[in-house]
Amino acid sequence: MTEKFSFEEIQNTLRQMGEKALEASRALGVLNSSDKNRCLIKMAEELEASADEIKSANAKDLEAGKAKGLSGSMLDRLKLDSERIQAMADGLREVAALEDPVGQNISTTVRPNGIRIDKVSVPIGVIGIVYESRPNVTVDAAGLCLKAGNAVILRGGSEAINSNLVLAHCLNRAGVMTGLPDGAVQLIPMVDRQAVSVMLKMDKYIDLIIPRGGEGLIRAVVEQATIPVIKHYKGVCHLYIDAEADMKMAAEVVENAKCQRPGVCNAIETLLISKEVADKFIPPFLENMRENGVELRGDEEFRKYDPEAKIATEEDYYAEYVDLILAVKIVDDVESAVRHVNKYGSKHSDGIITENPIAAEYFLSRVDSSTVYHNASTRFTDGFEFGMGAEIGISTDKLHARGPMGLNELTSYKYLVHGTGQIRK
Amino acid sequence: MTEKFSFEEIQNTLRQMGEKALEASRALGVLNSSDKNRCLIKMAEELEASADEIKSANAKDLEAGKAKGLSGSMLDRLKLDSERIQAMADGLREVAALEDPVGQNISTTVRPNGIRIDKVSVPIGVIGIVYESRPNVTVDAAGLCLKAGNAVILRGGSEAINSNLVLAHCLNRAGVMTGLPDGAVQLIPMVDRQAVSVMLKMDKYIDLIIPRGGEGLIRAVVEQATIPVIKHYKGVCHLYIDAEADMKMAAEVVENAKCQRPGVCNAIETLLISKEVADKFIPPFLENMRENGVELRGDEEFRKYDPEAKIATEEDYYAEYVDLILAVKIVDDVESAVRHVNKYGSKHSDGIITENPIAAEYFLSRVDSSTVYHNASTRFTDGFEFGMGAEIGISTDKLHARGPMGLNELTSYKYLVHGTGQIRK
Repeated sequence: MTEKFSFEEIQNTLRQMGEKALEASRALGVLNSSDKNRCLIKMAEELEASADEIKSANAKDLEAGKAKGLSGSMLDRLKLDSERIQAMADGLREVAALEDPVGQNISTTVRPNGIRIDKVSVPIGVIGIVYESRPNVTVDAAGLCLKAGNAVILRGGSEAINSNLVLAHCLNRAGVMTGLPDGAVQLIPMVDRQAVSVMLKMDKYIDLIIPRGGEGLIRAVVEQATIPVIKHYKGVCHLYIDAEADMKMAAEVVENAKCQRPGVCNAIETLLISKEVADKFIPPFLENMRENGVELRGDEEFRKYDPEAKIATEEDYYAEYVDLILAVKIVDDVESAVRHVNKYGSKHSDGIITENPIAAEYFLSRVDSSTVYHNASTRFTDGFEFGMGAEIGISTDKLHARGPMGLNELTSYKYLVHGTGQIRK
Repeated sequence: MTEKFSFEEIQNTLRQMGEKALEASRALGVLNSSDKNRCLIKMAEELEASADEIKSANAKDLEAGKAKGLSGSMLDRLKLDSERIQAMADGLREVAALEDPVGQNISTTVRPNGIRIDKVSVPIGVIGIVYESRPNVTVDAAGLCLKAGNAVILRGGSEAINSNLVLAHCLNRAGVMTGLPDGAVQLIPMVDRQAVSVMLKMDKYIDLIIPRGGEGLIRAVVEQATIPVIKHYKGVCHLYIDAEADMKMAAEVVENAKCQRPGVCNAIETLLISKEVADKFIPPFLENMRENGVELRGDEEFRKYDPEAKIATEEDYYAEYVDLILAVKIVDDVESAVRHVNKYGSKHSDGIITENPIAAEYFLSRVDSSTVYHNASTRFTDGFEFGMGAEIGISTDKLHARGPMGLNELTSYKYLVHGTGQIRK
């Protein structure tokens, strides 16, 4: 895709895509569950049947990526092999097996004048997904949006354009074969940045934008969009080891939250330790971190125990390392811990380890994060671990969806009012 | 308020207000219901005790408004007399009497590994309200936000600045006297437009913006904001008289939905009539509309029955008249009615009058509006009529809150996870 498009061509193409998506969303919104599931399963089959086509498009992207000098880890994220194609297909079948989030009765009220007000879940409408390199997002996001009755407009990274186009065509083709409206799944074919800018202002057609990627991408989306955005910002997660923590539990949870998978957003980046237990907790903790190859950066107090640790700067406390690095701070009490978390955290996931129910209650009620833990690892913030069966991301926003976003969070609601001719007095 | 502020002064003032509001919101979020209610009642008393001060500030606004040549209806909206001050105070007492929306358990899940996940309602945090002339919004919006545990930053219209400042000071003073943190209620003291622009980008401090006013205001807010916005756009509401409508009911509901209070957003602007019942429905309808002084604008078909009616243009079908004017169109069937509503409507409130349950179900499931009615007047779309006990507005958005927004819609949620040392495998 090396063609250059004029701004007018971009606008026209996107308007047509928007109209098509809106039209498709009307039809999608009233499809029943078994029809939607049939489509999802057909999509899975179509991906499997098109594996060669997908791999050869992906080879073009990889080649271009190498020529552009992408890093090894970037190229790895970009790569689609048989196993990854199979994983995408399996993912669609899993989504097909989940309960339909649409058409649920949320509440029913009968008013004194006799009107009955049913609040029911409905699709949001048209969802725009803006994402970076991983082409599997094309399939995963489309599958979840469709299951919730939404049409989707995808805008992937330029480095994966060939892979994404083939994947999106596969999905749309399978959808049309099984009765889905044409346009339920569309991918923006042009890589120009202007196309995103145009997309983000199409509030006439798109109801929600979900950006998936780094902070720079999300910031750019928020600044340009006139469409509501649900942000999945970074995870600067904390654990606080309280004065009354169980030391064995504290050691295990810290190791898990930092080391089990340091590259994900629900891993911790900063450890807060009550000064009351510093003497007891720190020596075995230092050994454990050394065994796990974790680099520590601490405040003055902490460095009395570990003089080799780097000094933690303000920047360290704001940092999302997504790596085997941990900032550490010794604090006076649960109150200072909460203050630290609310100042430096990213409203994602934070926890306290304590046997004291009052300290736990204080921490849980005052930490302003999507998920707050008492005596458990922050690594559980995840749609699957929460029992949602799926996850399109983890919202660090407070509106509409907070924390893990599953299928229910991809729906809206409306009120259906039944009367017998009631008029307002 | 005729001083001029530099951009830097505006930025500094607003940043300080933002910091203060964020700090206040932390304290507000953990206040219990009786403390919040005590504050609200004290605020009501303070308004009553300050009636003279309020009226004299209001007199300045009225004088400036006259000098600026504001219309009579604008001046009336601006005016605060004893009765209106009493109504604001009474409103606060009513909000105090409502159930606290914060701290409700939304759901509890126990996972196979034993962690317990409680989803509980929490305040949103800091809410920004941007509104036009009516100074009562200062009190009404602040009362609802506080009851839901949110700090509020208010930005009223320049023409009401003196009244709004006195009202906001009254509320904040009463709050501080009864234990509310200083800064729970703040009003932006400068009337410069730049102040709104700065406010709308303060995503570090403000979690939600609710604009209340005309389409121009809302559009400007959406275009500038980097903070989530819940829009309360216009109401282009419809009634469709189906082939199988009860004629007496249809006549009564149409009259109510158009004439009972034509200046509000849930009154209808367009009437769609099935061609099957046009002969029967239209003659008495014409008489009724004439009696009510309603001006009709119709398509060619309709004008065969009413040659004096103006021709309805495309613009008419998109128009929110908020006046005794009604656009009329004769349609083939429920399918064309739905198509018309989804094309020209504003996703607010629309209804069908029919005795045919299949037609009703078709209309209710396919019309993409916050509230869809079967055999009832659209005038019921209202927080009080829905039993919410209050209303901060009617959302025409699909995210977070749709339709009437009461206290529950001014909350978010978070997950509280209790474990016994669980770690992720």
